[in-house]
Amino acid sequence: MSFSFSVVAEDGAARAGRMTTAHGTVDTPAFMPVGTAGAVKAVTPEELVACGAEIVLANTYHLYLRPGHDTVRELGGLHAFMHWTGPILTDSGGFQAFSMEALRRLDEEGVRFKSHLDGSLHLLTPESSMEIQAALGSDIAMVLDECPPLPSPRESVEQAVERTTRWAERSRQAYAGPGVPFAIVQGGTFEDLRARSAEALVAMDFPGYAIGGVSVGEPPQAIAAVARSTAALLPAGRPRYLMGVGRPEDLVEAVAGGVDLFDCVMPTRNARNGHYFTGTGVVRIRNAKYEKDLRPIEEGCGCPTCAGGYTRAYLRHLDRCNEMLAPMLGTLHNLWYYEKLMADMRAAIERGTFAAFRESFYAARSQPPA
Amino acid sequence: MSFSFSVVAEDGAARAGRMTTAHGTVDTPAFMPVGTAGAVKAVTPEELVACGAEIVLANTYHLYLRPGHDTVRELGGLHAFMHWTGPILTDSGGFQAFSMEALRRLDEEGVRFKSHLDGSLHLLTPESSMEIQAALGSDIAMVLDECPPLPSPRESVEQAVERTTRWAERSRQAYAGPGVPFAIVQGGTFEDLRARSAEALVAMDFPGYAIGGVSVGEPPQAIAAVARSTAALLPAGRPRYLMGVGRPEDLVEAVAGGVDLFDCVMPTRNARNGHYFTGTGVVRIRNAKYEKDLRPIEEGCGCPTCAGGYTRAYLRHLDRCNEMLAPMLGTLHNLWYYEKLMADMRAAIERGTFAAFRESFYAARSQPPA
Repeated sequence: MSFSFSVVAEDGAARAGRMTTAHGTVDTPAFMPVGTAGAVKAVTPEELVACGAEIVLANTYHLYLRPGHDTVRELGGLHAFMHWTGPILTDSGGFQAFSMEALRRLDEEGVRFKSHLDGSLHLLTPESSMEIQAALGSDIAMVLDECPPLPSPRESVEQAVERTTRWAERSRQAYAGPGVPFAIVQGGTFEDLRARSAEALVAMDFPGYAIGGVSVGEPPQAIAAVARSTAALLPAGRPRYLMGVGRPEDLVEAVAGGVDLFDCVMPTRNARNGHYFTGTGVVRIRNAKYEKDLRPIEEGCGCPTCAGGYTRAYLRHLDRCNEMLAPMLGTLHNLWYYEKLMADMRAAIERGTFAAFRESFYAARSQPPA
Repeated sequence: MSFSFSVVAEDGAARAGRMTTAHGTVDTPAFMPVGTAGAVKAVTPEELVACGAEIVLANTYHLYLRPGHDTVRELGGLHAFMHWTGPILTDSGGFQAFSMEALRRLDEEGVRFKSHLDGSLHLLTPESSMEIQAALGSDIAMVLDECPPLPSPRESVEQAVERTTRWAERSRQAYAGPGVPFAIVQGGTFEDLRARSAEALVAMDFPGYAIGGVSVGEPPQAIAAVARSTAALLPAGRPRYLMGVGRPEDLVEAVAGGVDLFDCVMPTRNARNGHYFTGTGVVRIRNAKYEKDLRPIEEGCGCPTCAGGYTRAYLRHLDRCNEMLAPMLGTLHNLWYYEKLMADMRAAIERGTFAAFRESFYAARSQPPA
């Protein structure tokens, strides 16, 4: 195990930090592109680096089913397999196993689910999730948690918190991989349950903590509130990861509240739907008004797509023709936008100007869209 | 108009040449990747250059329907639109219009067809094809020809030859674009009809000539024979283009017969189906034997995929998961393979060692597949 984290600057509750893993260093706040099956959709690892990504997330559920963690280990681990030399965080697999609807059952032992690929039966336990992630060689392995749907009665959320605590302890004891395990705070929108969850997990002294059960359908204000209040319950010297969030505004608010790490499919998935992020809002390239628009997605953007000279008119044409080049170029832009947003926030925190950054971020978005 | 062609070396019937257009120079024999709708599928123009492509082909039929040639002209022409600064050859649109099966009708005026997109009715004439290609700004515009299906009775092929001749004359008179028009020799597998077609077209003194009506289902020997015999009927000082062909073997045989230019969807389309070209034959990545194969597609290959360190095991995984990265990486490899094959043939012709090259090409393919 080779892992450390230190806060290098603070500005209000926001912090800039540096996380060191066996596969390199990550400057925080950081955004992790999602490489579901061991590949970030429509971009090469080389392009991810060019976009500024320092760490990627991969999904344990998918890699466990295909090609299988034993195969990945045999082939030299996930880094070698997916051709990514930087740090990798893997989720526990629980969230996706649990999303299989009628196909799953959850009890104290773990999650039983049917593969969406071939219907085969599987049991994911706190221990097996750690074992799979160890086989993958993840730098950061997430513990299996119970994430109740929204809305859930207080009693269900309370039970999920308690089970998550017990599972975290089992995970901590079971983990024997090359990286470190992170615990996940649950508790829904109940502040006292979040506090109880955080307290129990912090007592176990994990190398990092995630805020889970967020972005499951609640309004943006609720995401920001939970992120802020939960971050405040976590030890200052450990990285804080807000799972599955989200929109640029959500990232800005969560960073303001003291969060360090993020992942979300939004930049990659939305690119495939022709939604491109800019400082003044979203460019929906399918809009007819872009048919003869010779501007880049965003003026002044340094991404390979905008700086490379690709026009909105061409991107709209590619999208209409279902040309693969559209998601390729759009994903590059969106990931660049997200990584640049994180870099700008880091710089602002280091300079002590995060409040001004946040203000100008919202001011730009209130401009008329291009 | 700025166009020239000169033969720089000959070796038997094979020739190495240099074709100069307003958008740059093409060393021949050359392979043109197919950019159907103004984009070569799954690669960026920058990557095309990295693979060694000096010229691309775009399909008039597709660009005429979407976004429309007037729109492309208004946006600065096809080079600017598709972000490709090198030479572009466009086909006449006839082949695709004619492929619309029940939707089309052909007479002396031209081809009437229904759009596959919205069912709207269109008439493509020799004159309108030239006008569309001029609007696109193609460096090389192909005349509208009549390409009879295989097999066709001699009488039909003879009529197609005569109509193709009349249409070539109409095209030549109508063309007012920035590039040059190429004529197309028809005649099927009837040597005397090929000769009659070539003679009539050569008398019109076109800047270049294509061999059409090939690769419509005939055996490889027939392709090679028609390419060789037709090439011999064409003026030495003009480029010769074998349309829509084909497999690496077909290219080697046609170059041996004196052909200079090629296009085919095979490297790009086959890449999307997991068929990767190598010197010893095709790697079908879906084969289970590649599951744990840590070798590149081809040992010693300099393409971004192989030299970049991507393994067969990973490519197979990406293909199984329908990850876009599979066609992206596979297309890079296949285009590199095709462009390298052309470069190797050029070098062999210049050195006067084409016969030895051809021999070693077939010797490598007779090796047991990897």
